Amino acid sequence: MESSPHAERFAELIGAANVLTSPDDQAPYLTEWRDLYQGVTPMVLRPGTTEEVGAVMTYAYSHGLKIVPQGGNTGLVGGQIPQETGDEIVLSLARLNKIRSVDPAGFTITVEAGVVLETLQNEAEKVDRLFPLALGAQGSCQIGGNISTNAGGTAVLAYGNTRDLVLGLEVVLPTGEIWNGLRTLRKDNTGYDLKQLFIGGEGTLGIITAASLKLFAKPKKLEAAFIGLPDPHAALKLFTMAKTQAGPVLTGFEIMPRVGVEFCLRHLEGARDPLESEHAWYVLMELASGSDAFPVRDLMESILGEAFEEGLVEDAAFAQNLTQVQDFWHIRHGMSEVQKPEGGSIKHDVSVPVASVPDFLDRAIAAVDAFAPGCRPVPFGHMGDGNIHFNVSQPVGADKQEYLARWDEMNALVHGIVREFGGSISAEHGIGRLKRDLLKDVKQPIELELMQRVKAAFDPKGLLNPGRIL
Amino acid sequence: MESSPHAERFAELIGAANVLTSPDDQAPYLTEWRDLYQGVTPMVLRPGTTEEVGAVMTYAYSHGLKIVPQGGNTGLVGGQIPQETGDEIVLSLARLNKIRSVDPAGFTITVEAGVVLETLQNEAEKVDRLFPLALGAQGSCQIGGNISTNAGGTAVLAYGNTRDLVLGLEVVLPTGEIWNGLRTLRKDNTGYDLKQLFIGGEGTLGIITAASLKLFAKPKKLEAAFIGLPDPHAALKLFTMAKTQAGPVLTGFEIMPRVGVEFCLRHLEGARDPLESEHAWYVLMELASGSDAFPVRDLMESILGEAFEEGLVEDAAFAQNLTQVQDFWHIRHGMSEVQKPEGGSIKHDVSVPVASVPDFLDRAIAAVDAFAPGCRPVPFGHMGDGNIHFNVSQPVGADKQEYLARWDEMNALVHGIVREFGGSISAEHGIGRLKRDLLKDVKQPIELELMQRVKAAFDPKGLLNPGRIL
Repeated sequence: MESSPHAERFAELIGAANVLTSPDDQAPYLTEWRDLYQGVTPMVLRPGTTEEVGAVMTYAYSHGLKIVPQGGNTGLVGGQIPQETGDEIVLSLARLNKIRSVDPAGFTITVEAGVVLETLQNEAEKVDRLFPLALGAQGSCQIGGNISTNAGGTAVLAYGNTRDLVLGLEVVLPTGEIWNGLRTLRKDNTGYDLKQLFIGGEGTLGIITAASLKLFAKPKKLEAAFIGLPDPHAALKLFTMAKTQAGPVLTGFEIMPRVGVEFCLRHLEGARDPLESEHAWYVLMELASGSDAFPVRDLMESILGEAFEEGLVEDAAFAQNLTQVQDFWHIRHGMSEVQKPEGGSIKHDVSVPVASVPDFLDRAIAAVDAFAPGCRPVPFGHMGDGNIHFNVSQPVGADKQEYLARWDEMNALVHGIVREFGGSISAEHGIGRLKRDLLKDVKQPIELELMQRVKAAFDPKGLLNPGRIL
Repeated sequence: MESSPHAERFAELIGAANVLTSPDDQAPYLTEWRDLYQGVTPMVLRPGTTEEVGAVMTYAYSHGLKIVPQGGNTGLVGGQIPQETGDEIVLSLARLNKIRSVDPAGFTITVEAGVVLETLQNEAEKVDRLFPLALGAQGSCQIGGNISTNAGGTAVLAYGNTRDLVLGLEVVLPTGEIWNGLRTLRKDNTGYDLKQLFIGGEGTLGIITAASLKLFAKPKKLEAAFIGLPDPHAALKLFTMAKTQAGPVLTGFEIMPRVGVEFCLRHLEGARDPLESEHAWYVLMELASGSDAFPVRDLMESILGEAFEEGLVEDAAFAQNLTQVQDFWHIRHGMSEVQKPEGGSIKHDVSVPVASVPDFLDRAIAAVDAFAPGCRPVPFGHMGDGNIHFNVSQPVGADKQEYLARWDEMNALVHGIVREFGGSISAEHGIGRLKRDLLKDVKQPIELELMQRVKAAFDPKGLLNPGRIL
């Protein structure tokens, strides 16, 4: 592909400073967190407005140029990295970072796709509201990418996925046309809900340039408990008990195994065991209320008291203040990184129906034990959503590369069990490039065909993010 | 169209008793609540299973037969009634009425499309859960139809629309193929979320045959207040105050004008004015908590006390018991029917951003006053969702038919104002046949084109519910 005439034209459209062709300028856009992909691109484009994105896409479409949209470059399935073939142009949304409007009375906010998630959270905070999406990557990820991947995070239990937070979208289509679907309406039944295709569409059907989002009341009272239990079956009963009694006040329910807590005590700065004895499993439970009047602590004690009596819970530590709440979450959030010093870790981002989590864990743990004797399963995560990060650390003393060479094999084993439970092989992270070949194993042929038809309807030339998902 | 060979084939597929050809048998399927449409059909088919629906659709598709799916026949935009041309076969989902599975621990339920909504509510109740969708028509409407129209209702504020309650769908495509997308997963990012197209798709992209749905904790404590206020601007401030303090505990916020309450006092059996004096506007506010421990009454008093001090509220009656709660809702739910004895009523099912409701009401009321002097606007509804049933009763003593003859003209006037606020001309009821011609006025050309392309991708022959929406 001749890049120079195109680069010149793009420079006219968006400014020469926003067309990056040198290796140094391009580097941050070409690698990703897991070091699985190394991209090559003729140029990185950084348009500044929706109209500029439209102009870029119009030109690209008419000239048969492939485009890869990129937000904060925090994606975990490689979708945002251009292929090594070097014929995909990166289109960064980073400069579309305006807060377009805020409506505290109506509980909505409208922002451009390049707004960093943490910035968005802060803007909500300024008007005494909560934007509940919360991820480890929030200091870097951009809301456009969050929407394109239907990001999950730790607040899904009470507030839903990103999909549940979106009221309207502004999208540039593969052809360059702009669809302004920005509405802040709570109810609107006037035809097909097209925005739902772009949400979780991983940038393959259109490029999100702005979004209208829901805001919520800020929680005023928050309680957390770090709970020791015998097994996930007890944890499930505790979950059902808590959800029945607390309803929307239950804002967190995360499960962790002893080995994961040990990894944290060993490697995580400042981590202390909240409980006196060791327990086979742990739950971090959080309750939060928007009303000062709500006796959140009483409710927490009532739920756990009942759970003790039923033999579900062995011990529990109640956070005495916000610092201790943060200490509890520190352990949970640190559980990913502390696997690194323990050697190779084979990862799975899976979900099963909530009530199947204990049985799934029993079977999957037994299966990987047999597959790689001595391996150390560290399954943890959003039990209340059925989403377990089923990560398996290598046996102590094993050869790391030999262990990791079995990644696909272990994935196939665990994914097979997930499918038996009617679960998902990608609960949060999406398909991107990494899991594209797995889709045919988990989707019915008719479903794949419908997706192909939708893709063809929106992008007849197949130029926008090709090879992602499909 | 020759019906006899087709009728014979359908009889083989689903049983002769389930192929209705006599006028008496067909009659209930051919008229609807508003008496706007009178349908004609060669036959009404009543398959009993998903496989039978698939077999019927496979045959129909290969023989070029038009199919109109029908649930409880409670739709308000005529989509479910076959056209007078008499070349559309009605396919009733009524016999697909099994409860397939219930999972109280995981808070999900899976049911067939023909299950009546009230039955579904009762099934949830049996296992100490709540299925929150609640409509006036719940004794007749079927869940498949509710999903196809993304029904709203009175519980949207706390629980969302029907769309927010669906975890998975089983759908028979226009070609007859069956897509089993029934999952009870809370998180699943494996490709395009195709179910979102069928939700609110009004039966034009596929026929829903079963659904996996969310269940919720049952509310244990409920409080309601009937509040008198000076105007909708005060009501909006009260809403913001209540939502900020109560968050998800705020489960109802309905606005009503004095004239509507007067109609109820005049025509509704058992209706009493909850307040001593007359007020220009009213709000019915409800708080509900799943926890016995929540001081719901204290919170209600706290919110209203603050509202009194700020001059937003003139008076309020607190329900002393569940019967009084029901009395308050009786007035609200009766507000539609009591318009009938007052003569002709021109109706609008619109929504605007919540914070725009007061300004919208100011402008729309002034506009219809000028348009039909002496008319009596009765705007009421789900203020907390921005959805107002803007119904306008004829002037006292006017000629009813002459007044109703101006229906389209008044619609155009009010819809024009709605559009200026970025609102929707069909907040709840959908497009169907009734509002199909209005779509081009409210959708951007690119949006209509995308919808056409999606329709063509799913139904290349255009045989499923043609002429609805598009």
